[in-house]
Amino acid sequence: MDLNQVYTLIQPGLNSVEAEFRRLIDSQQDFPEMQRMLQQILVGGKMVRPTLTLLAGSLYSYRKERHQAMAASSEFMHIATLVHDDAIDSADMRRGRPTINFVWGVDLAILLGDFLFAHAGETAANTGSIRAVKIFSRTLGVIARGEIKQAFSAFKLPQSYEQYIERIAAKTAALFTLATESGAVLSDAPEEAVQILSDYGYNLGIAFQIVDDILDYIGTEAEVGKPVGADLAQGTVTLPAMKIVERYPHDNPIDKIIAREDIAVNIQRALEIVRGSSIIDECYQEAAKYTQRATANLLNLPAKPAREALYCLADYVLLRKI
Amino acid sequence: MDLNQVYTLIQPGLNSVEAEFRRLIDSQQDFPEMQRMLQQILVGGKMVRPTLTLLAGSLYSYRKERHQAMAASSEFMHIATLVHDDAIDSADMRRGRPTINFVWGVDLAILLGDFLFAHAGETAANTGSIRAVKIFSRTLGVIARGEIKQAFSAFKLPQSYEQYIERIAAKTAALFTLATESGAVLSDAPEEAVQILSDYGYNLGIAFQIVDDILDYIGTEAEVGKPVGADLAQGTVTLPAMKIVERYPHDNPIDKIIAREDIAVNIQRALEIVRGSSIIDECYQEAAKYTQRATANLLNLPAKPAREALYCLADYVLLRKI
Repeated sequence: MDLNQVYTLIQPGLNSVEAEFRRLIDSQQDFPEMQRMLQQILVGGKMVRPTLTLLAGSLYSYRKERHQAMAASSEFMHIATLVHDDAIDSADMRRGRPTINFVWGVDLAILLGDFLFAHAGETAANTGSIRAVKIFSRTLGVIARGEIKQAFSAFKLPQSYEQYIERIAAKTAALFTLATESGAVLSDAPEEAVQILSDYGYNLGIAFQIVDDILDYIGTEAEVGKPVGADLAQGTVTLPAMKIVERYPHDNPIDKIIAREDIAVNIQRALEIVRGSSIIDECYQEAAKYTQRATANLLNLPAKPAREALYCLADYVLLRKI
Repeated sequence: MDLNQVYTLIQPGLNSVEAEFRRLIDSQQDFPEMQRMLQQILVGGKMVRPTLTLLAGSLYSYRKERHQAMAASSEFMHIATLVHDDAIDSADMRRGRPTINFVWGVDLAILLGDFLFAHAGETAANTGSIRAVKIFSRTLGVIARGEIKQAFSAFKLPQSYEQYIERIAAKTAALFTLATESGAVLSDAPEEAVQILSDYGYNLGIAFQIVDDILDYIGTEAEVGKPVGADLAQGTVTLPAMKIVERYPHDNPIDKIIAREDIAVNIQRALEIVRGSSIIDECYQEAAKYTQRATANLLNLPAKPAREALYCLADYVLLRKI
């Protein structure tokens, strides 16, 4: 199965998520500024999280209304976190478009993010499942707590590998886990299947974020939609940077960036070291370890097209360029 | 019934809310910075919203676990909105203590607010009631949307009385409505009673906010916990300011503040005009109109001590100084 076939499988569900976007925008007709902000941010991205919810939900009793609500909810939550992230990072661009904070300022970005969190919660409640709502709220808490931890560790000494994984687990894998776990729960999957799909989401999320962190070093700005080396510029040490420190423990650009010495020059040096070494390969191997874990138990799930799609997505995560 | 008797009635419930605060703080023992932030902000205030949930819940089938969860949830949500409000207003002090943004910066205030919203949502889900969760999410959306509107109208021409009520309905009455309505819903109150209690919360909230806006003109900084005239300084036109414009349509300090002319001087002038006129009395009469609406239908509810307490709170709202 290739990626196009995956999308064909769940296209009606993804269309319903976009319909939810439009419905929210249309509901604000008495408030044009609000509509403009929502139009700016509610644009169909890769829709990875809804895709996961819809696929996980297709393995047992797929229930259109519930699963579509949950798929939309996870994307609303994702977008809300991006709005706040961009406000915190003072990011100007996201997905090639100006951010909310860039156009309307940080204050409105805070409030629009809150509004979207609320709407995500309401949409989750529309599933009618308290369990899904609990997973939803808990996930939002894990994400926020993880970012608070990250804020306290920026521009600090390189973290351990375990701390890195803990950080990206909160930043990315938590919401992937929400997506697959809630999809499973809403389809009344047996508990072992819920666990397998939850683990799939977690491990896929870790792999996805490792690749994201790789792309921060080797992607082009046009592809990634933000400047290369943006993580380092914010003092965020990711896997490639950790591998530089490992190789050059006594003299390396990462320690200097952390000490805020010639940040721009040292980011360039870091990018050069990474590109001229096997560091990227090693990071991809690390990501592949997690996609293997993600798919390790899928054979215990029903042999449906959605299961093939989950294998396909795991492959895709390692190949993606954007 | 006096205020002390009201509190005696619901003290166990309020204690449980404080116990929820401590539980959350204790759950972060592996993360001392997080604990410090939570300790800074999770301090027992007036607990108006939990009080309303507990009282509204006491009129029919009071269910301890559910009602205490909802009471805590409404206070967590309230505190989360305060954390974001202070970040947006660059407020240094709140309830006589330094704000999160003052001590840790705006970024951490955004994230801590998100964390508290998530925890509020999880606590609401602990009621087991999808209806309560839906009211919770919708309320958060109304609050955020209201603040977005306010942001777009700050430093604009004075609004109409209707727009003022619409704004304070979102800012304050929505959460009061959540508090009473959810309390009623969780006690399986008949729908007419849910409506009466929901209306009570709404009208009490409007009155409460009108008094808040009065106190911004006549309170002392020690009582109110923030500088006098703080609203005007942010370009927020409240009822007393609207009455100044009404009286002096051609030359008044409010229009000048909106035009950003000599803001400090004109705030002083506005405070003097208000204090030397019957404007405060008129505003209190406006507030009293809403407390009368709040209590208008309470006689249709069961004649329990909680009902007396609701009357008492309506009186107290007009008398409070902090």
